[in-house]
Amino acid sequence: MAFSAVDTIWVLLGSVLVFFMQAGFAMVETGFTRAKNAGNIIMKNLMDFCIGTVAFWFIGFGLMFGGDGPFIGGLDFFIRGNYDSTFPTYAFVIFQTVFCATAATIVSGAMAERTKFISYIIYSLIISMVIYPISGHWIWGGGWLSQLGFHDFAGSTAVHMVGGLAALVGAKILGPRIGKYTKDGKARAIPGHSLTLGALGVFILWFCWFGFNGASTVSMTGDAIASASKIFVTTNIAAATAADVTMIITWIRYKKPDVSMTLNGALAGLVAITAGCDAVSPAGAFFIGVIAAFVIVFGIEFLDQKAKIDDPVGAIGVHAFCGAAGTILVGLFALDGGLFYGGGVALLGVQLLGVGSVAIWVVVTMVIVFFLIKKFVGLRVSRTEELAGLDLEEHGITSSYADFMPALPVGTDFRPSVDAEAAELEVPKEVAIPVTNISKPGAKMTKVVIITKQSKFEHLKVSLDVLGITGMTVTQVLGCGMQKGSTEFYRGVPLETTLLPKIKIEIVICKVPVDVLVKTVKEALYTGKIGDGKIFIYDVENVIKVRTGEEGFDALQDE
Amino acid sequence: MAFSAVDTIWVLLGSVLVFFMQAGFAMVETGFTRAKNAGNIIMKNLMDFCIGTVAFWFIGFGLMFGGDGPFIGGLDFFIRGNYDSTFPTYAFVIFQTVFCATAATIVSGAMAERTKFISYIIYSLIISMVIYPISGHWIWGGGWLSQLGFHDFAGSTAVHMVGGLAALVGAKILGPRIGKYTKDGKARAIPGHSLTLGALGVFILWFCWFGFNGASTVSMTGDAIASASKIFVTTNIAAATAADVTMIITWIRYKKPDVSMTLNGALAGLVAITAGCDAVSPAGAFFIGVIAAFVIVFGIEFLDQKAKIDDPVGAIGVHAFCGAAGTILVGLFALDGGLFYGGGVALLGVQLLGVGSVAIWVVVTMVIVFFLIKKFVGLRVSRTEELAGLDLEEHGITSSYADFMPALPVGTDFRPSVDAEAAELEVPKEVAIPVTNISKPGAKMTKVVIITKQSKFEHLKVSLDVLGITGMTVTQVLGCGMQKGSTEFYRGVPLETTLLPKIKIEIVICKVPVDVLVKTVKEALYTGKIGDGKIFIYDVENVIKVRTGEEGFDALQDE
Amino acid sequence: MAFSAVDTIWVLLGSVLVFFMQAGFAMVETGFTRAKNAGNIIMKNLMDFCIGTVAFWFIGFGLMFGGDGPFIGGLDFFIRGNYDSTFPTYAFVIFQTVFCATAATIVSGAMAERTKFISYIIYSLIISMVIYPISGHWIWGGGWLSQLGFHDFAGSTAVHMVGGLAALVGAKILGPRIGKYTKDGKARAIPGHSLTLGALGVFILWFCWFGFNGASTVSMTGDAIASASKIFVTTNIAAATAADVTMIITWIRYKKPDVSMTLNGALAGLVAITAGCDAVSPAGAFFIGVIAAFVIVFGIEFLDQKAKIDDPVGAIGVHAFCGAAGTILVGLFALDGGLFYGGGVALLGVQLLGVGSVAIWVVVTMVIVFFLIKKFVGLRVSRTEELAGLDLEEHGITSSYADFMPALPVGTDFRPSVDAEAAELEVPKEVAIPVTNISKPGAKMTKVVIITKQSKFEHLKVSLDVLGITGMTVTQVLGCGMQKGSTEFYRGVPLETTLLPKIKIEIVICKVPVDVLVKTVKEALYTGKIGDGKIFIYDVENVIKVRTGEEGFDALQDE
Repeated sequence: MAFSAVDTIWVLLGSVLVFFMQAGFAMVETGFTRAKNAGNIIMKNLMDFCIGTVAFWFIGFGLMFGGDGPFIGGLDFFIRGNYDSTFPTYAFVIFQTVFCATAATIVSGAMAERTKFISYIIYSLIISMVIYPISGHWIWGGGWLSQLGFHDFAGSTAVHMVGGLAALVGAKILGPRIGKYTKDGKARAIPGHSLTLGALGVFILWFCWFGFNGASTVSMTGDAIASASKIFVTTNIAAATAADVTMIITWIRYKKPDVSMTLNGALAGLVAITAGCDAVSPAGAFFIGVIAAFVIVFGIEFLDQKAKIDDPVGAIGVHAFCGAAGTILVGLFALDGGLFYGGGVALLGVQLLGVGSVAIWVVVTMVIVFFLIKKFVGLRVSRTEELAGLDLEEHGITSSYADFMPALPVGTDFRPSVDAEAAELEVPKEVAIPVTNISKPGAKMTKVVIITKQSKFEHLKVSLDVLGITGMTVTQVLGCGMQKGSTEFYRGVPLETTLLPKIKIEIVICKVPVDVLVKTVKEALYTGKIGDGKIFIYDVENVIKVRTGEEGFDALQDE
Repeated sequence: MAFSAVDTIWVLLGSVLVFFMQAGFAMVETGFTRAKNAGNIIMKNLMDFCIGTVAFWFIGFGLMFGGDGPFIGGLDFFIRGNYDSTFPTYAFVIFQTVFCATAATIVSGAMAERTKFISYIIYSLIISMVIYPISGHWIWGGGWLSQLGFHDFAGSTAVHMVGGLAALVGAKILGPRIGKYTKDGKARAIPGHSLTLGALGVFILWFCWFGFNGASTVSMTGDAIASASKIFVTTNIAAATAADVTMIITWIRYKKPDVSMTLNGALAGLVAITAGCDAVSPAGAFFIGVIAAFVIVFGIEFLDQKAKIDDPVGAIGVHAFCGAAGTILVGLFALDGGLFYGGGVALLGVQLLGVGSVAIWVVVTMVIVFFLIKKFVGLRVSRTEELAGLDLEEHGITSSYADFMPALPVGTDFRPSVDAEAAELEVPKEVAIPVTNISKPGAKMTKVVIITKQSKFEHLKVSLDVLGITGMTVTQVLGCGMQKGSTEFYRGVPLETTLLPKIKIEIVICKVPVDVLVKTVKEALYTGKIGDGKIFIYDVENVIKVRTGEEGFDALQDE
Repeated sequence: MAFSAVDTIWVLLGSVLVFFMQAGFAMVETGFTRAKNAGNIIMKNLMDFCIGTVAFWFIGFGLMFGGDGPFIGGLDFFIRGNYDSTFPTYAFVIFQTVFCATAATIVSGAMAERTKFISYIIYSLIISMVIYPISGHWIWGGGWLSQLGFHDFAGSTAVHMVGGLAALVGAKILGPRIGKYTKDGKARAIPGHSLTLGALGVFILWFCWFGFNGASTVSMTGDAIASASKIFVTTNIAAATAADVTMIITWIRYKKPDVSMTLNGALAGLVAITAGCDAVSPAGAFFIGVIAAFVIVFGIEFLDQKAKIDDPVGAIGVHAFCGAAGTILVGLFALDGGLFYGGGVALLGVQLLGVGSVAIWVVVTMVIVFFLIKKFVGLRVSRTEELAGLDLEEHGITSSYADFMPALPVGTDFRPSVDAEAAELEVPKEVAIPVTNISKPGAKMTKVVIITKQSKFEHLKVSLDVLGITGMTVTQVLGCGMQKGSTEFYRGVPLETTLLPKIKIEIVICKVPVDVLVKTVKEALYTGKIGDGKIFIYDVENVIKVRTGEEGFDALQDE
C-alpha cells in the first residue's frame, strides 16, 4: 500500500476543481435566465450535487466500477470494496463522485424556468443512481466500449453528451416556456437577468476544466507528466479558438458580436476537446475548436428556431452536440489512430459506434423516466406558477433580489400563450359612465407634466433652472407611442421593444405663467425628430407644504 | 533542511483555498443582507483578513505556537523563530494565518447591518491577536487540551465555534436590527438582497473546505495520503447529506423547500464534519450530516424566534452550534475511541470538556471586549444611520449598485422598532375622525398626492390606517427641491446628488373630508426640518372599480 | 526525459490560478463601471484571453523565448521547439500563455466605457503578439536586462507595468468619458454598478496571485520549496498591509474609509510585491505594502484630478505605478543586494534602468499602435453610442440585467461633456416656437388612469390597440388595497407583503369617447376576482406635442 503522493495530489486537486464546476453551472444557468426563477435554479444546482453524492455513494459507483461485466459493473452498496490504485480508493471515489454530479447538473439549465422542483429531484436521483453509471461503465468501468478501444478521455460522451441528451429529452417533453414562441411559431428572445453572473460562471467552468481534463490522467508520474501538460495546452487552445470563431460567426450573422453566444462558444470548445485532449496536437485542438464554434452557433439556432426546443441556456447545444462532435473528431484528429494522421477509419468507427450507442441508451431511458414522472408526478408547473416565477411558487421567495425594483417585462413575459389568449379574450361585458363636472377653488395653480426621453433630462433641468423652477418630481416610466425601438438580436433572435423607457417630470406652478414654462420646455426638448415628447397640463386645487403649513401660492415658493 | 516537496505543496495549496474562503464569506454575508449595507459588509470581510494578517504576524502566531505552556504559547513578535517541519516555517505561517482570519470573519455576518465600523475593526484586531491564538494553543499548539487527547482535526471548535460564539455575544449585546421584531415580539423576515451571490458564496466555501479539512493533514506522505483522501469523502458526504436533510425538514415545516436555509444546511454539514473528518467513516459522516441539519434548522429557529438574537446570515447556528455539535460527535463516531465503536466515554468526555472550556473562554473574553468597546467607542450605529444604511453613513457610498433602481422596502424595512414604535404612535391621537357620511351619487372626489421621504412611509401608513384609508398607490420617484444631498466622496471625488429619492403616495378620497386627511398627513410627516414633503390636491371626475362595476363613491369603499 | 512530478504540478497549478485572474479582472472591471457597458467589458476580458492565446501560440512565445538574442527571442511559429526543463515544454507554454493574457487584460479597465470593440481587438492582438513578448524577452527570455541582473521575479514590470502603461497611453489618447469632467475641469465621480462584484474580483485576484507569484519559482524541489513558501507570506503581508494603509489614508483624507479605494489598495500591494516577493523579508514586504498604499491613493488622485486621465477602474495606478514602484523597491529591500541591506546602489541602478527602458518601449510602441488604430479604424465610439451604452450599440444587448429597473442616472450620466455642451446649447435657439396662448381648447380632453396587476398589461394593450390607442405611459407602482398577499416563509419566518406590485397606465384621450375606453378597459381586466383594478378619470387642460407644436386634439393624433 505504497500510494503515490503526487498521483493522489493530482486526483484530489482535480476533484476540488470539478466540484467547483457546480458553482460555474449555477452562475451560468441563473445568469442566463430570469430573476424570478433565480432561487429555484440555484436550488436545483445545489440539490443535483447533494442528492447525486448520496445516490452515487449508495449504488451508482458500484454499477459503474464494481465489476467487469460488459454492460454493468456490479452492486457495491456504499462503496465497501477496494479500488486502490497508485492512489487510495477514497481519492478515486471523490473524483468519480464529482464527475457524476456534473452530468446531472447539465440538465437543469435546459429545463429551467418551468420544471416542477419535486420532479427535477426525482430525475436527478435516477440519472446519478443508474443512467450515468451504466453508460459510464461501458466507457470507463471496463465495459464493452472500453474493450473496443473507444476513446473518451475525460468525458465528452460519458459526462457531457449524457447530460446534454437528457436535457434534450427533458426540454422536448416539457415544451417551451410561455411566450417563447409567437402564435405563428417564431422564436422570441427572453434575455437572462445577469450577463455578468453568466460570464463569471463561464470563467469558473473554464478554470475548473483544467482539473476535469488535466486530472483525468489520474496520475502525475511517468508519461502522465507530459500528458497532463499537453492536456492543459490543448484544452486551452480549443476553448479560446472556439470563442474566437463563435464571435466571428455571430458578428457576420447578427451584425454584432454576440456576448452570450461567445460565452457559449468557449464552453463548446471545452466540451469538444474533452474526449481527445490527450490524443490530439495543439493544431488538432485548434481545428476542433473551430468546428465546435460552428456546431454551437448553428446547433443553437436549429434547436431554437427549427426544432422549437426551448433551451434557455444553450445546454443542449454545448453539451449534447459538442460532446458528440468532440468524441467523433477524435477519430479524425487523434495522433495515434486518427484518420487525418494515417490511422484509417477503425478508430472513427468505434467513436461513432460509441456515440450512437450511448445516445440510444440515454434517450430511451430518459424518455421513459420523464414520461413516468410526467404521468405520476407531473413535470411542469402550472401556467400561473410559471408566470409568477418558480421562486415564489416553489420556494416561497418573493424575490431573490429583494432590494431591487424589478423591471416591467417588455414584450415577452406576460404575453398569454397562443391558446390561452384566444380563450381569455371572450370573457366580460356591461358598462356605462356619468361624468360629473366639478368647480375649482381660488388661486389658479397648474400641473405641467412632461414625458420625454431620459437623455433629455439634464438639458431640460438647466432650462428650468433659468426659469427659477427647482421643485419637480421625476419618475421613470415606460412610454408606448409612435417611436419604435430598433431591432436588436439576442443569440440570433430579434428582440422586441415596443415600450421604451422615458421619464415623467411633474411640475406644479403658480407664479411662473404656464405659457412661459411650456415655451421653455419646448425649446429645451425640440429636435424635430420623433420622440421629442409631450407636455400635459392639469388643474391643481391646492398645495400644502408640510413643514410650514403654507398653502397654495405660498407653498410653492421654495426660498 | 530536506523539506518534503509534496507536503509543502499540500500545505500551500490548502492555504490558497482557505484564503479564498474570505470571498465565500463575503458573498454569503452580503447576499443574505440588504443592499444598503453591501459595501460595509464587503469592507468588514476584507479588513478582517488584512488586519488579522498583520495582527497574527505581530503577536498572535507567537501566542499560539511560540512555546509549550499548557495555557499560552509564548511571545515571538513578527515570527522570528524556527517552526520547520517537513515543510518550511513560512508554509506553516501562511497556513495558520488564513485559518486565524477565518475565525475572525465569521462574526461580521451575525453583527451585520448595525455595527459601527471602527468598533468592528477593534474587535477584529483583538480576536486575531489574542483570543483565537490562546484557545488555538490549547487545541493545536501543544496546550492542555491537546495533551488530554482532545480531537478537533481541522477546527470545528478552534475556528468555527470560537468565531460563532464571538458572533453570538456580539449579536446579543448589539440587539436586533430595527424592524426585526414586532411590538409583540414576533420575528419578521428581512430578505437578503442577492440570493445568487449568497449561493455563490456557499459554493466557494464548500470548494475551499476541501483545503481547510484536507490540507489539515499538513502532510502528503505515508499515512497522510490515505487520510487526506478519506477526508475529501467524509467532508463531501457530510455537507451533501446535511443539505439534503435540511431541505426535507424545511419542506415539511414551511411547506416549501427553503433555499437559503438549505444553503446554510450545506455549511452546517461542513462545520460539523470538520472536527472528525479524519476520524470517522463515510457512514459516520452521513449521520453527522443528518444531525447537523437538525441543529441548524432548529438552532436558527430558536435563536430567531425564542432567544430573539438577530443573526442576519445564520452564522451563529452554522458555526457555533454545529461547531460544538461536530466536536462532541467525534466522541460518538470516531472509529478509534468513539462511543458507538466501542471506545467508551473517555473521548466523549474530553470532547465535552474541550467544547465547554473553549466556550467559556470565548464567551467571557468577548463579553468583556464588546462591553469595553460599547462603553468607550460605541458598538452600534445610530437609528438614522441604520435606516439609511451603513454604506452611506460609514463609507459615503450612495449605493453599491448605482445603476439599479432600489425597490421600495415592503413591510419591514422602515417599520419603527418595538420601543420606538410605541413612543411614536402617541403623537397623532388627537386627530379625531369626524366621518361625515356623504350620500353616494355626484359626490365630490379628490385626489391627494403626497411627496415625501421614503423613510416616512410606514409611519404615514399607520396614520392613514387609523383614518380607514387603505387604498393607495405608491411610486418611487426622484424629487428635486430645496433639500440638498450632503457631499460624499467616491474615490476622492465628490458625488453630486441633486435628485433625491422620494415616494409619491396617491390617494383618492370621497367619504373622508380632504381637510381631515390633510391634517393627518401633516401631523404624520411634520418634523419641522427641510424635506418634510408636500401635499397636492386635484379634482377627480370619476372612479370605476373593475370587478364590481361600481362608480364614484361606491368604487372607493373597499370592504 | 525524467520530468519532475512536483515541479510540473507546481507550474500547472500556477497556470490554473493565473488563468482564473481573467475572472477576477472581469469582475473588477465590470463592477466598477456602469451597467450599460457590462456586457462589453465582459466580452473584452474574454476576448483578450481568447485572442491572446492564439496570438501568443502563433508568434508571441517564439519572440519571447525562441532564442538568446539581447533584444528579441526568435521565430518559432506555433511553438514547435523544445523547451523542456524539469517540466515538459507544454507546461511552460501554458504557464507563459496565461501570464501574457494578464498583461493584455489590464488595459480594458482603463479604456472602459468608450472604446470601440473592433479597435480593442486589434490592440489586444498586437500587445500579445509583439509588445509584451519583446520586453518579456529582455527580462525573462535571456535578453539584455536579464543579463544585467534585473530582478523582476514574477512580473511587476514584465506584466503589470507593461499592461498599465499601455492602459495609460490608451486612456490618454481616448480622452475622458462624457460627463467625467465639468466645464471648469473638475473631476466628477461616476460610481460603478456593483461594488460586490468588484470586491469578488479583488478576492479572486488575490487568490490567484498566490499562483502568479508562488508558481513563478517554476520548481518545487530543493531551495524552491523554501522560496515558494516565503513568497506566499511576503505576497500576503504586502497585500494586507497595503489595504490597511490605504483604508487609513482614505479615512483621513475623505473623512470615511473608502471601500473601492481600499480594494484597489489590496491590488496595489499585490502588484508591488510581485517583483521582489522572493527577494525580500516579510518586514520588507510590509514596507513595500505601505509604500504601495501611498502610491495608489495619490497616484489615482493625480491621474484623476491633475492629469485628467480618466481611468474608470484605477488600472493605471495599480499596475503601472505600483508595478514600477515595486520593481524599483527591490533595489532597496532585496536581502541580497538591496541598498537597505548593505548591497550598495548597483541593483537599484539596474532596476531603474530596467523600469525606464521597458517604460520607453511600451509607451513609444503603444503610442504608435493607438495612433494608427485611431487613424484607420477609429478608437472611440460615437457620443450617441457612449451615452446609450456600449452593450446596446456594440453588441445589441438591451440590458445585461434585463429584469431590473435601471436607476435614473443622477447627475453625471447624461450631462454633456464640456465641449459638446457648449455646442449643443446653441442649437435649439432658432426653434422659436410661436406659443399660442392657451386659454381652453375646444375639445374636452380626459386622462384615464388604470391601476391593475402587472400580468394584465399585455392583454390590456391588445384591447387598446383595437381602439386605436397607442400612446400611453406605464409606471410600476406599489398598490395597497384589499387584495392581500399570501403568506410565504423566509427561513421559517412569515413574510409580510401588504404592498403589492401593480402597474399604472395613463392615457390621455380626446377623440375616443371616455365611456368607450372605460368599457374596453373593464372588459379587458374583468375576471370577477379581487384585484381586477380601478380606473380613475381626470380632466386635462391641454396637451402639447413638442416636435410639431400642435396642441389639444391635434397633439393627441399620432399618425
